[in-house]
Amino acid sequence: MTSTNTTGPGYGVHSEVGRLRKVLVCAPALAHRRLTPTNSADLLFDDVMWVENAQRDHAAFVAELRRRGVEVVELHDLLAQTLGVPGARDWLLERKITANQVGIGLMDDTRAYLETLEPRRLAEYLIGGLATTDLPDEYRSAYVSLVRESTGVGEYLMPPLPNTLYTRDTTCWLYGGVTLNPLYWPARHDETLLMKAVYEFHPDFTGATVWWGDPELDWGQATFEGGDIMPVGNGVVLMGMSERTSRQAITQVAAALFANGAAERVVVAGMPRLRSAMHLDTVFTFADRDIVTLYPKIMDDVHAFTLRPGDGPAGVSITDEGSRTFVDVVTEALGLPAMRVIETGGDVYASERQQWDSGNNAVALEPGVVFTYDRNTQTNALLRKAGVEVIEIVGAELGRGRGGGHCMTCPLIRDAVGF
Amino acid sequence: MTSTNTTGPGYGVHSEVGRLRKVLVCAPALAHRRLTPTNSADLLFDDVMWVENAQRDHAAFVAELRRRGVEVVELHDLLAQTLGVPGARDWLLERKITANQVGIGLMDDTRAYLETLEPRRLAEYLIGGLATTDLPDEYRSAYVSLVRESTGVGEYLMPPLPNTLYTRDTTCWLYGGVTLNPLYWPARHDETLLMKAVYEFHPDFTGATVWWGDPELDWGQATFEGGDIMPVGNGVVLMGMSERTSRQAITQVAAALFANGAAERVVVAGMPRLRSAMHLDTVFTFADRDIVTLYPKIMDDVHAFTLRPGDGPAGVSITDEGSRTFVDVVTEALGLPAMRVIETGGDVYASERQQWDSGNNAVALEPGVVFTYDRNTQTNALLRKAGVEVIEIVGAELGRGRGGGHCMTCPLIRDAVGF
Amino acid sequence: MTSTNTTGPGYGVHSEVGRLRKVLVCAPALAHRRLTPTNSADLLFDDVMWVENAQRDHAAFVAELRRRGVEVVELHDLLAQTLGVPGARDWLLERKITANQVGIGLMDDTRAYLETLEPRRLAEYLIGGLATTDLPDEYRSAYVSLVRESTGVGEYLMPPLPNTLYTRDTTCWLYGGVTLNPLYWPARHDETLLMKAVYEFHPDFTGATVWWGDPELDWGQATFEGGDIMPVGNGVVLMGMSERTSRQAITQVAAALFANGAAERVVVAGMPRLRSAMHLDTVFTFADRDIVTLYPKIMDDVHAFTLRPGDGPAGVSITDEGSRTFVDVVTEALGLPAMRVIETGGDVYASERQQWDSGNNAVALEPGVVFTYDRNTQTNALLRKAGVEVIEIVGAELGRGRGGGHCMTCPLIRDAVGF
Amino acid sequence: MTSTNTTGPGYGVHSEVGRLRKVLVCAPALAHRRLTPTNSADLLFDDVMWVENAQRDHAAFVAELRRRGVEVVELHDLLAQTLGVPGARDWLLERKITANQVGIGLMDDTRAYLETLEPRRLAEYLIGGLATTDLPDEYRSAYVSLVRESTGVGEYLMPPLPNTLYTRDTTCWLYGGVTLNPLYWPARHDETLLMKAVYEFHPDFTGATVWWGDPELDWGQATFEGGDIMPVGNGVVLMGMSERTSRQAITQVAAALFANGAAERVVVAGMPRLRSAMHLDTVFTFADRDIVTLYPKIMDDVHAFTLRPGDGPAGVSITDEGSRTFVDVVTEALGLPAMRVIETGGDVYASERQQWDSGNNAVALEPGVVFTYDRNTQTNALLRKAGVEVIEIVGAELGRGRGGGHCMTCPLIRDAVGF
Repeated sequence: MTSTNTTGPGYGVHSEVGRLRKVLVCAPALAHRRLTPTNSADLLFDDVMWVENAQRDHAAFVAELRRRGVEVVELHDLLAQTLGVPGARDWLLERKITANQVGIGLMDDTRAYLETLEPRRLAEYLIGGLATTDLPDEYRSAYVSLVRESTGVGEYLMPPLPNTLYTRDTTCWLYGGVTLNPLYWPARHDETLLMKAVYEFHPDFTGATVWWGDPELDWGQATFEGGDIMPVGNGVVLMGMSERTSRQAITQVAAALFANGAAERVVVAGMPRLRSAMHLDTVFTFADRDIVTLYPKIMDDVHAFTLRPGDGPAGVSITDEGSRTFVDVVTEALGLPAMRVIETGGDVYASERQQWDSGNNAVALEPGVVFTYDRNTQTNALLRKAGVEVIEIVGAELGRGRGGGHCMTCPLIRDAVGF
Repeated sequence: MTSTNTTGPGYGVHSEVGRLRKVLVCAPALAHRRLTPTNSADLLFDDVMWVENAQRDHAAFVAELRRRGVEVVELHDLLAQTLGVPGARDWLLERKITANQVGIGLMDDTRAYLETLEPRRLAEYLIGGLATTDLPDEYRSAYVSLVRESTGVGEYLMPPLPNTLYTRDTTCWLYGGVTLNPLYWPARHDETLLMKAVYEFHPDFTGATVWWGDPELDWGQATFEGGDIMPVGNGVVLMGMSERTSRQAITQVAAALFANGAAERVVVAGMPRLRSAMHLDTVFTFADRDIVTLYPKIMDDVHAFTLRPGDGPAGVSITDEGSRTFVDVVTEALGLPAMRVIETGGDVYASERQQWDSGNNAVALEPGVVFTYDRNTQTNALLRKAGVEVIEIVGAELGRGRGGGHCMTCPLIRDAVGF
Repeated sequence: MTSTNTTGPGYGVHSEVGRLRKVLVCAPALAHRRLTPTNSADLLFDDVMWVENAQRDHAAFVAELRRRGVEVVELHDLLAQTLGVPGARDWLLERKITANQVGIGLMDDTRAYLETLEPRRLAEYLIGGLATTDLPDEYRSAYVSLVRESTGVGEYLMPPLPNTLYTRDTTCWLYGGVTLNPLYWPARHDETLLMKAVYEFHPDFTGATVWWGDPELDWGQATFEGGDIMPVGNGVVLMGMSERTSRQAITQVAAALFANGAAERVVVAGMPRLRSAMHLDTVFTFADRDIVTLYPKIMDDVHAFTLRPGDGPAGVSITDEGSRTFVDVVTEALGLPAMRVIETGGDVYASERQQWDSGNNAVALEPGVVFTYDRNTQTNALLRKAGVEVIEIVGAELGRGRGGGHCMTCPLIRDAVGF
Repeated sequence: MTSTNTTGPGYGVHSEVGRLRKVLVCAPALAHRRLTPTNSADLLFDDVMWVENAQRDHAAFVAELRRRGVEVVELHDLLAQTLGVPGARDWLLERKITANQVGIGLMDDTRAYLETLEPRRLAEYLIGGLATTDLPDEYRSAYVSLVRESTGVGEYLMPPLPNTLYTRDTTCWLYGGVTLNPLYWPARHDETLLMKAVYEFHPDFTGATVWWGDPELDWGQATFEGGDIMPVGNGVVLMGMSERTSRQAITQVAAALFANGAAERVVVAGMPRLRSAMHLDTVFTFADRDIVTLYPKIMDDVHAFTLRPGDGPAGVSITDEGSRTFVDVVTEALGLPAMRVIETGGDVYASERQQWDSGNNAVALEPGVVFTYDRNTQTNALLRKAGVEVIEIVGAELGRGRGGGHCMTCPLIRDAVGF
């Protein structure tokens, strides 16, 4: 991993709809088997999952991606491979099994136990969490009793990370480099640390250019999540300024992209702070070069700004786009004559329900071909009517964390498109 | 400030009830004028305050402390004096006015404006918060519009810190040294940074021995709040393991105290995770050498542990005190023949109400003389009946953040008592 | 009590600011001693009270009303007198101590115990609630154990009614007749039953003309609270259509008033549904013939309608006032050349705080003389600057149920004013 | 319908596991298409549904019931047939389209529109709700504008009743008679009114013996839901005293059953007040004569009482079963030598998840044959291991209102079993 060198793994994402060639996903697993009605809200899930069916549906999604020619990398696999690289296990365990996280009374025993595990099993615990009750008897000292009493700090020695399912957020490739994102909720912070281990040690990932971000630093209010970020092509990046992605982060990333000549314009979508519209991609995604699907009830109130290289602070200048709609600004930025807009389908009840069920969270395989959840039948019908090929993902279980196909995919290689 | 040298300002707290000689408080001010019905919960207050009356009541409390011979230091004064010391202003502003907190678009202007302020005014903003609307026109660039739209990240360039009112939590003197505490809620983190500036630069505070803690590091789950911590004497420290003080921190602090020979035993109170009993001192405080006031509904369920120097991890060994009550363990640890217990007064309704209104949150001036809120008339009557002198603080406004006299005082010098 | 006859007690309210001659209040008492942190939200209070101080402050308010020549009637007194009238005790206990409310296992014992009480004591329990634990041993059958287990239905045989403090809501005199209001929250329903007993049996109240309402019937969505209703004079009644007062009730009351020739116009304020602006009088009251105090953040969004006698359903016709402000419509309806508007005082923080603290909830003694809480110093200053005499009520305790002087008073006789 | 005559439709439920011969269900429909993320909590649903799939899964459940010889009646069908009976439409519309519910301004127009509808369509609106926006233009007077402004009272002229899906709760056959239940939540009250219309007018239902209940009366705290009630045979009825079923109702129903000689014993399960265990049948159901499936975390804390005919109030005497477990009391009451208990399956996470997903909510077709949701694989495996035949219902959508097969069925005819 390096912040300056632009050789590396050959990854790069040059549009939202160009041919998707390689993508990172994460299958439901142990972390989701930890979800219960009493802890799911803390872990940012609205409901518990039938994990076996979620796995089945995720596997079908991955199989279809592969059948259509996309190379798919899965996070458990990737992390297990990483842990097999000399130094990687130590690097990660030194950062996870600390006095601050595990406690001095249990850290040595916990580390000792984890050292006995094979890479695959260790990867499962790193993503799925390690409960105190998972420690075998020979690793349980008198200090375990303190954990049981300590209702204030949870019962995990390593927290479960069920939101790894949404690989989109943790890191994002913006043209030829990647960001390692400081995520908004503490429940997700450790996701980025796992990804840093991958980029530090996995042979397929080392050498990547990192534009911005490092999970070992404290980013304060500068939080940034991939669901808000879209490298749409033409030197433009869209960034939702939302509950989870802050102006503090957006301006830093824009400055880094401009300083590296990686982008010429960032269009910021000033969004309301709502769980139902937590990221830009929950209310606005691309289905083709000139087709977007969006939820008007939110998007109508979005205020647009443009950041460009300039003589403002850190080399960034800002333009308030005033009363122009976000879609108009994006259309102009891409140099398109017009954008075709497909709104969430159905009556007032159905459209609110479909937005909630990730109806606007399409991810493109190539221009005019997208994956969406099956349950949003009315929005899917409108996309098809506009000539878009819609491939369905079964969403009964996968959607319960409020994320769809766009959220569940982190593109590593995606072609540019012309405008 | 130093971690090893035990010379320094001569501060030290050697009991909970010995003569109080010097104490740190913080008056209600700008931070409380920022409280509104919509933001108070985020700032950990249950209701808004009539600030002028809160100031009046706090001033009366301070005046009575002084009249009784206690030297009282006020945080705004202290911080203003600190900011007058060469280097202090730069040190603090470099840590507060950063790209991550203020944003690259506004940090230069914000810093420039703050540089124009006198120390006293700057101290007021550091504690009271700096709203975007506080920036004078000449310091407002085009980037201000981005703030206004960015509902997700608040509208403060520096956050208000109304919980400084409860100086007890931020730092605590345990016998001859102090801890700089990592507080549980992000809304309070910056309090400790202000205190570090004081200990780094203020001539009355430099040279203090710091047992543990540094607000410039990330402490993860190791959170520690003074309301849970009581250096009761006889080499014993009581620590509530609560919503806000974790076993990860408790064991580290115990290890540091033992390694420095500063204490011989830590008695841990394993508490439930409840806002109404957020700290040990909300349900248990001392009124005399052998008198405690407590709320039985919570304290009956507390599970006690003892930490001692030993051959466990980091030189700490643990004993589960099993079915012994917390009071019994404390009585034995102090070498007392018996403890007199004064429960929260009144019927089932009144006792719940008085605990909520900080009825058990007494702070001692000397053995048998305590300050409490006036409104807890029944508990106060029981204390008086037991021979305790009760001095009343008007609590109508001050109590709305759920803290009483114990919370509002950070003892700097308190004598030992014999047992 | 009668619905058609207009003789009776000589009560009548003919304006919002004319000389107040007789008023009904209710002192804090047993019901407020029942409030605890865990039940206060269910009982619609934001925080617990120091009951003794609330009583002191309420008594001071009443004393000032009396000193200024107002005849003040207190609800506990009134109910105790009512219970001394033959038939009243039976009437009320038959309606309170039923199988549906108390349970067949306990109703006979409960009734038997209540029959032993003097009127004053019984009135205290009717307002303050009767807990199962209040039953003396000789009235406790084996069925009491079922209550203890039954956490689902509370532990009261008669519920506490702490919101009787806000006598404004329960009944309202509109010119020469009264409404017995179906209140929005179930926690308040029984208040109106107590008032019906007063109007049925108390010699000073029988014979009153009742325009609408009967607590023995089910009113469904037709809920109506006096805090939303203002008989401003000139044949006009203002009605807030709010969280608590519905169009179903407003149109029925308008029809009843028009049918009886009691009013010529109802101006409806279409309000948002917010706890902070639960009634019209929390954001808008009169301080003089042509002076109102209001909270612009809410009032700016109010949509006005007019109801008049006409050939619409039930003899009521409706006019949508379109883009005219509520104040403009009221000014025109009263035939005033202009209205002086005093907005909530202070900066953005202070004005939100003062609205919350009932800053706009003034009650007039006569034109230009009002009572308000002391804590809203900035709004009070603006009122005084406009020439209004402001008499202060101590609000530290009384305001915790979110009601001020207007809420705490139910005018029985108030003069008209000229316009 | 009659309260005294025991002839009638021949319905009767004589056990929990005897042959099920006739059952009432209600298919998902318009009411569920009204569910959105913002209104679902008010309508007691945890999440929105994919209505088409819920309909498909419900139809498969019904088809399997029929294939196995059960006569299935569907509520929309039943209500449509009822509305075709002379007098029924008027009876129901007079009670639904009132000034209190619809408002005087709209009731005539609304009634006029509903009069134009065929019975089937009217039944759909009665169950599915009638939004203001459903009114055709020719029925929209100026009063409609008042509705739009009145955010405080919703936008329905008749409320949607999505919980009709759970027919178990609304009415219950206990041996040879039925109860018309006052339901706990106002959002469900009108369900019972629809059922009363069926029992008053539908030729297959008139003449039924009604033990207790009438939706046209106000039952206060006497609320009763079928999910808590089990006529297990041997003259015994089990009743959960829960969040939703109160002692006030339980004792009244017991008195009515005893007075009619319909039962000899009621065993009361004193439950905690929790949404996750809202009814007894969410934590305890029968799978065979002597097999129950239960969730130990809740059932271990249930306190049992017995009601029997006696000389207590209303002819009911009470026995506190003290420390005996609920299962032990039930076993003894049925005269069984022992009960086989199948606990919720899986580890601590899975069992909590399966209880939440209605894992213990089995409904028996006959002894040893039950329907449950497919997703509770571990509990289903344990049932099968015990020799129970488990028929699966697809639960991905149907379960989102927190009810399973037991909740979705109201048995009309079920045979007795021997013990």
